[in-house]
Amino acid sequence: MKRPELVAQIKAKKSFLCVGLDADIHKLPKHLLKESDPVFAFNREIIDATSDLAVAYKPNLAFYESLGVRGWDSLQRTLEYIPSECFTIADAKRGDIGNTADMYARTFFKTYDFDSVTVNPYMGQDSVTPFLQYEGKWAIVLGLTSNPGAADFQYYRNEAGQPLYMHAMKKMAEWGSPENLMYVVGATRPAELGELRAMLPQHFFLVPGVGAQGGSLQDVFAHGANPDVGLLVNASRSILYAAGKVDFAEAARAEAARMQAEMAALMAAI
Amino acid sequence: MKRPELVAQIKAKKSFLCVGLDADIHKLPKHLLKESDPVFAFNREIIDATSDLAVAYKPNLAFYESLGVRGWDSLQRTLEYIPSECFTIADAKRGDIGNTADMYARTFFKTYDFDSVTVNPYMGQDSVTPFLQYEGKWAIVLGLTSNPGAADFQYYRNEAGQPLYMHAMKKMAEWGSPENLMYVVGATRPAELGELRAMLPQHFFLVPGVGAQGGSLQDVFAHGANPDVGLLVNASRSILYAAGKVDFAEAARAEAARMQAEMAALMAAI
Repeated sequence: MKRPELVAQIKAKKSFLCVGLDADIHKLPKHLLKESDPVFAFNREIIDATSDLAVAYKPNLAFYESLGVRGWDSLQRTLEYIPSECFTIADAKRGDIGNTADMYARTFFKTYDFDSVTVNPYMGQDSVTPFLQYEGKWAIVLGLTSNPGAADFQYYRNEAGQPLYMHAMKKMAEWGSPENLMYVVGATRPAELGELRAMLPQHFFLVPGVGAQGGSLQDVFAHGANPDVGLLVNASRSILYAAGKVDFAEAARAEAARMQAEMAALMAAI
Repeated sequence: MKRPELVAQIKAKKSFLCVGLDADIHKLPKHLLKESDPVFAFNREIIDATSDLAVAYKPNLAFYESLGVRGWDSLQRTLEYIPSECFTIADAKRGDIGNTADMYARTFFKTYDFDSVTVNPYMGQDSVTPFLQYEGKWAIVLGLTSNPGAADFQYYRNEAGQPLYMHAMKKMAEWGSPENLMYVVGATRPAELGELRAMLPQHFFLVPGVGAQGGSLQDVFAHGANPDVGLLVNASRSILYAAGKVDFAEAARAEAARMQAEMAALMAAI
């Protein structure tokens, strides 16, 4: 999906919500376990309940891989079921030497037809650029993540006091463009989000950490929005497991609608 | 596999060779393509030809994932075929927030019964420690990699001039022990390898970059060996594709034997 389509969808739906499809087989409502593919059955209901409210879906690969081959089958079915107007993200956090990164890009863009894949930048340029070679496809590189461990290495500072995440994000902007490169920036760090928006006015940021991890949507928008909105705010557990029983899809819709309404209000104010 | 078993195997085989199972469907000898599972057929012959010379096998996940579900089937068959005395490495370079890292650990240690998995440390402690919770299993964390892109972020220096890779490797030694944590250190950087060995005298280093990437086995041993040898030197393409036709397994054995003989000579000299 190209950027103008993504931006048009955000404006039409008045939403920049990304639903994280982290279907944990151990947390699924019990009545789904009798289905032939419980993970897909769950995802299908979640997608049906939210696809007019969300602009993107982000399956977290760990949850599929952990089930072995049948997990990859569930992933394939899920990907095919997502409406074509929605942006799809393989949350895989891959990163390896050039010839291996080529293979990962082929996996997520050819074997599976995702619009984007999350990429870990630790190994540098040749681990990132293979994901930037496909028309209409995106690399979403880790910048500043939402988890406690982000403090360990991402804040490593050079003699001028510049943290690694800032150096890395600036450097990676030379490898791609706002048309094929996004960044992961955690919602749990709104002050940094503002600095990063100043440094990278045009790029999209994929923002996890609202919901279960405690970030605020209002803060994220205040510090991170640009004229194209420029944000995809992800929520996973707070939507998927809003209720744990047969009413899970209704509860997921209610939570997605609550977030979408808040997003629409924020978008109306600019 | 616990450390004493690994060390005993290294001493018995007079080898610290790891064979990287990066079976690229596009590079397989043509006669294998008529097999029902060409990747497994290739791996099986490579394993048969090298398992008395190698102490470890390292399937590179990208090459399996790129084939979709049938690639994971090939991976499972390959893993089951590797002799139980050999150490197995899922070269997956995973790394994500704590609850997701838990899932990846479950994938590679439970769904698949690998001895170890490579882990990317960019996201910090909660992305690494879930891989350290399994008896007899190992996290192999990226330290200083062998690829050109290593220069981009791994050499980011603090005000004292200490590069990120050194900071990260020192920090991670606090999270695991030489019994469950190894590091990836590229063969293409022998001077740094010596410094890292001085800093981390006991840990095993997994060393890619000998062979196709140009590193020297002699340099690696001179700078990186410890009394337990403490090295697993990986070769992938130089062994797998030593010859491209029906004689590929013989040629792979010849190249593995050449490396093992060099390793035995280096080990005899200490």
